[in-house]
Amino acid sequence: MIKAGIVGGTGYTGVELLRLLASHPEVELKVITSRSDDGTPVAEMFPNLRGRVDLRFTAPDMAALKQCDVVFFATPNGTAMHMVRELLDAGVRIIDLAADFRIPDIALWEKWYGMSHACPDLVAQAVYGLPETNRAAIKNARLLANPGCYVTAVTLGFLPLLEQGIISLTGLVADAKSGVSGAGRKADVGILYAEVEGSFKAYGVKGHRHLPEISQNLDHAANQPVGLTFVPHLLPMVRGIHATLYARLEKPQTDLQALFEQRYAGEPFVDILPSGSFPETRMVRGSNMCRMAVHQPQEGDTVVVLSVIDNLLKGASGQAVQNMNIMFGCTETAGIDQIAVLP
Amino acid sequence: MIKAGIVGGTGYTGVELLRLLASHPEVELKVITSRSDDGTPVAEMFPNLRGRVDLRFTAPDMAALKQCDVVFFATPNGTAMHMVRELLDAGVRIIDLAADFRIPDIALWEKWYGMSHACPDLVAQAVYGLPETNRAAIKNARLLANPGCYVTAVTLGFLPLLEQGIISLTGLVADAKSGVSGAGRKADVGILYAEVEGSFKAYGVKGHRHLPEISQNLDHAANQPVGLTFVPHLLPMVRGIHATLYARLEKPQTDLQALFEQRYAGEPFVDILPSGSFPETRMVRGSNMCRMAVHQPQEGDTVVVLSVIDNLLKGASGQAVQNMNIMFGCTETAGIDQIAVLP
Amino acid sequence: MIKAGIVGGTGYTGVELLRLLASHPEVELKVITSRSDDGTPVAEMFPNLRGRVDLRFTAPDMAALKQCDVVFFATPNGTAMHMVRELLDAGVRIIDLAADFRIPDIALWEKWYGMSHACPDLVAQAVYGLPETNRAAIKNARLLANPGCYVTAVTLGFLPLLEQGIISLTGLVADAKSGVSGAGRKADVGILYAEVEGSFKAYGVKGHRHLPEISQNLDHAANQPVGLTFVPHLLPMVRGIHATLYARLEKPQTDLQALFEQRYAGEPFVDILPSGSFPETRMVRGSNMCRMAVHQPQEGDTVVVLSVIDNLLKGASGQAVQNMNIMFGCTETAGIDQIAVLP
Amino acid sequence: MIKAGIVGGTGYTGVELLRLLASHPEVELKVITSRSDDGTPVAEMFPNLRGRVDLRFTAPDMAALKQCDVVFFATPNGTAMHMVRELLDAGVRIIDLAADFRIPDIALWEKWYGMSHACPDLVAQAVYGLPETNRAAIKNARLLANPGCYVTAVTLGFLPLLEQGIISLTGLVADAKSGVSGAGRKADVGILYAEVEGSFKAYGVKGHRHLPEISQNLDHAANQPVGLTFVPHLLPMVRGIHATLYARLEKPQTDLQALFEQRYAGEPFVDILPSGSFPETRMVRGSNMCRMAVHQPQEGDTVVVLSVIDNLLKGASGQAVQNMNIMFGCTETAGIDQIAVLP
Repeated sequence: MIKAGIVGGTGYTGVELLRLLASHPEVELKVITSRSDDGTPVAEMFPNLRGRVDLRFTAPDMAALKQCDVVFFATPNGTAMHMVRELLDAGVRIIDLAADFRIPDIALWEKWYGMSHACPDLVAQAVYGLPETNRAAIKNARLLANPGCYVTAVTLGFLPLLEQGIISLTGLVADAKSGVSGAGRKADVGILYAEVEGSFKAYGVKGHRHLPEISQNLDHAANQPVGLTFVPHLLPMVRGIHATLYARLEKPQTDLQALFEQRYAGEPFVDILPSGSFPETRMVRGSNMCRMAVHQPQEGDTVVVLSVIDNLLKGASGQAVQNMNIMFGCTETAGIDQIAVLP
Repeated sequence: MIKAGIVGGTGYTGVELLRLLASHPEVELKVITSRSDDGTPVAEMFPNLRGRVDLRFTAPDMAALKQCDVVFFATPNGTAMHMVRELLDAGVRIIDLAADFRIPDIALWEKWYGMSHACPDLVAQAVYGLPETNRAAIKNARLLANPGCYVTAVTLGFLPLLEQGIISLTGLVADAKSGVSGAGRKADVGILYAEVEGSFKAYGVKGHRHLPEISQNLDHAANQPVGLTFVPHLLPMVRGIHATLYARLEKPQTDLQALFEQRYAGEPFVDILPSGSFPETRMVRGSNMCRMAVHQPQEGDTVVVLSVIDNLLKGASGQAVQNMNIMFGCTETAGIDQIAVLP
Repeated sequence: MIKAGIVGGTGYTGVELLRLLASHPEVELKVITSRSDDGTPVAEMFPNLRGRVDLRFTAPDMAALKQCDVVFFATPNGTAMHMVRELLDAGVRIIDLAADFRIPDIALWEKWYGMSHACPDLVAQAVYGLPETNRAAIKNARLLANPGCYVTAVTLGFLPLLEQGIISLTGLVADAKSGVSGAGRKADVGILYAEVEGSFKAYGVKGHRHLPEISQNLDHAANQPVGLTFVPHLLPMVRGIHATLYARLEKPQTDLQALFEQRYAGEPFVDILPSGSFPETRMVRGSNMCRMAVHQPQEGDTVVVLSVIDNLLKGASGQAVQNMNIMFGCTETAGIDQIAVLP
Repeated sequence: MIKAGIVGGTGYTGVELLRLLASHPEVELKVITSRSDDGTPVAEMFPNLRGRVDLRFTAPDMAALKQCDVVFFATPNGTAMHMVRELLDAGVRIIDLAADFRIPDIALWEKWYGMSHACPDLVAQAVYGLPETNRAAIKNARLLANPGCYVTAVTLGFLPLLEQGIISLTGLVADAKSGVSGAGRKADVGILYAEVEGSFKAYGVKGHRHLPEISQNLDHAANQPVGLTFVPHLLPMVRGIHATLYARLEKPQTDLQALFEQRYAGEPFVDILPSGSFPETRMVRGSNMCRMAVHQPQEGDTVVVLSVIDNLLKGASGQAVQNMNIMFGCTETAGIDQIAVLP
């Protein structure tokens, strides 16, 4: 059994990670920390876990965390970077669900996240945890940077087009929509029920923190700079991201359906829908799948990719468990083979 | 492996049954019928099942159904009663999710369901599938009547009070609220999104079909007639039933919390929350649990029981699988041990 | 023109009051105060008011408020009681949307609201603002206590039954459900979108602050003590209260439909639906109406009243404007004759 | 008073038209027709209108309609074209909320709408009812084609950019999202509550019927062909359209904020939000406003316009009343000056 710990498990990625790990056949949950909720039974805060998780939150305790084989950080940005070195030195493998280790360009990271990085040398060692592009490196990762939610949906959608070099590298558009759980579980008037329900809006057009991470992935896939406009929106629903991606085809004759199917053949968590389909976020709700469809409206030179994930699964905790499975040699789908809940 | 068939799988109880059975370790899905969707791949209608269920819907075919060990009927009321005799004669065990075999009093059934019963003799042999009251009989059932959704939530809530004889048997109130999936997947203006969203209403005060079934259960628990007012309401949400139950205590000194905990000790799918708690439907969403709390407002003589289930799980398909597990000697939680999805 | 001021207009009752008063033909909005948002244009916080309300929030300023003919308090409980005396002395008439002046029994008020009352003598002078029971006194009110939202829906529903003395005065049940806007616009994890959406729960069974206010109204209508169990619930929607009321008929022969229609004949804001109807909260959304239906299930001795209001209109700001209209001799429907928004 | 009739008032644009006209100071509702609901009181189908609209639906009756000054068609596409000639000949002015008269190119219309047009000569006489581009012609219109909902949101957003010739005319993207009421009030499984709630999807990528109408408007504004990709999406909410528009600036130095403010100065129903703002659909819910913001992400060469309307108001019935006001010389805001309902 893999001994697992969680630092900061009181948010939505935390409870989702607990839901997954509690059913994982090869994981034993050893410790979960929360400074503010020290002593509270986990199942009191999240009653869906009653009878399944007996742990209490404890104040962060390095000694206990060092007993683990793997520690997940489900903390705000800027927390993990202060704690991981000691754990790594003790031989613990780390999966950070926040952004601390996602961007190798430290100056860029510091600009977007508004703080100094505590351990640039460790960023250089970190492995970026998108299995569909980086599985081999993930196997041996000691410090894994789990991708952002928008980032996963957008990157997987553009990837086949960029890798094949069949689209113009300027003027890409990612019009992305996310359920409210992506904003976290914090007391904030802007995400109150009565502020969000029955309404829809864009936000962060000036610059969302996921933009540099997406750009980094796209540049890497194209092997050169890619020009992207990214507009996130807030959906009146809890779970799910839908990315609508636009690009100009430079080789319009390509069989896009076949291209996408071949790129993701064998991927357990990417599903290309039949030609003409429209993925719905509920088709992946509660599951680790990414489902996509590719369209070419009016047979013109614009390609439209529709990509959906559950932001808490493939966009966060599910992908973290997928990465853990790869890192520890488990079946890649272990503990994350739930079928989406529909309706 | 248990060979299972489903008759009429295109509704919400059907897709939920498929979700559960597709992950059940001891079940092999053999056939699923739908006259109107003959030939359609199941995963085309319900894309959450892509990669997990390869079957196509087929027109009802007795020969194929007779090869099964168990056949589930997820059909409208009045369908199963015309088909089960032939299957029973062939040694197939039957679990009917509709109402055809729930009410032994045939005249009463015919009054509420507005049709003649096709096989009153089989009703007499049917076993009522509420495991918490009837587990022993369920084990040997050949024809099982799976309880209604409101019925399950209300019965489990009143049960400890009635069995102990500590409440007045007149003036009980069951104020019940259900998500819209309980109304089924049928083209009907009344359950359109734009008719239901952001609004709330009662319905069926004159007499909901679940009333005689609830009354039958309550009478049985009390061993005498119980006077109940049952008012169902429609919630602007997809899944979940919340029953708020009111009764007059005749022995107010009773420790109600202990009473409920003892009654359901050992029950894998009934969870009594700590004193003072409020169950939320999301605490059971996507899971087979019933969670309850018992209150005595202002220490008066009124007891209030709050009982929540997911209408598609413990209120329908989950309970059907629980019954199947009992009938076939599987672990009772096999295939239905999903943790509720929260948020 | 009536010169109107608002103290504390940054909550949902505040913005609704602004929406109504901005369109009122006989009102001129002079001042709106908010200590925390001093200087912010009202239409910046509530952009639906752009082009219609040009005021800025100002820090509370007694001199400005004294220039008003009427001042509305849309403040938390316990605020108005510290400010009204000075305004009353200056001849300003007061409408308090909070609870400070609703309960003449000071000890009872202090017990439920957990603070000492600052001006018990003024409570004695205050007029309770439920027009359907107290219109004559409202006309001359200098200090008006606007009723609570649950209180209005429940009181109007039980009123005809109690006034006629046709129900048992013990064992009344008010099972009430409210949209989330009733909880106010404050940063609180419990009312986050992702905590509330798609779920339903009861709360406050131990004792909701509206209980003593409802009881006071019912006792008054019956002219003797009435035994009530009140259970509030939280609906996954923004606006609307639905009260489902249960009582035992002592004179079952009464024509309940006629009784309700006669009681509210001529009332501009109470509408009795035809026999057999089910009021939906959307039938009153955005309007000041209370719509009701009365049922007698299975012709038994239990009467069920269904009563809906928009908690922000007839349950708060709409009723406040109705009271103002009565106090100042305007047409009672002036500024509050909006038709409900459906769908 | 303007005598008004409505043909086909049982859908969502119908009930919204009734809500507006019932409060309009210069309109008298004379007749509303519905073949299927002949004899039903309007307020029985739409109880929000109880006490405000006393009419019953009647079977279509030309004699009664000819008594009107104006007749609104809130019918499915292809209905009005069979009825308007006779009414026009009788001197009745017509406002068609459907698509029959929106597209002068008959062949194009027939291709997208899949039927032969019954009166091409009348199409040539019809006036396109977008007041912001066509007010002078609307004044004298006898037959008015009210624009589509998506069309209004998208056209108003691109208009200032195209008229000034500052964007590239190829590669425009309109990523549009609509509430479910836009799909109408018809029994259809795809728009059931349990199919739509908590989920999000694109649709009609292959070609939505609003595409040719939008293109016609954009081409006209640019005075040459414009290349547009239009992807509509279905939002889990009832009312509101949000269009996110992307174009490439050819003159990036332009002050876009000033450009938009100047273009719409004096327009009563278009509101340009301050720089950096994000319009939310709730800012226009229940009102006839279009609110917009214009962004230039990372000061690059892509312009992003965010445009919101209530699809049932500025996207349908509100704009129809606005057009009627212009046609009959009423104040343009008469009957449609409701403030948006927020929250």
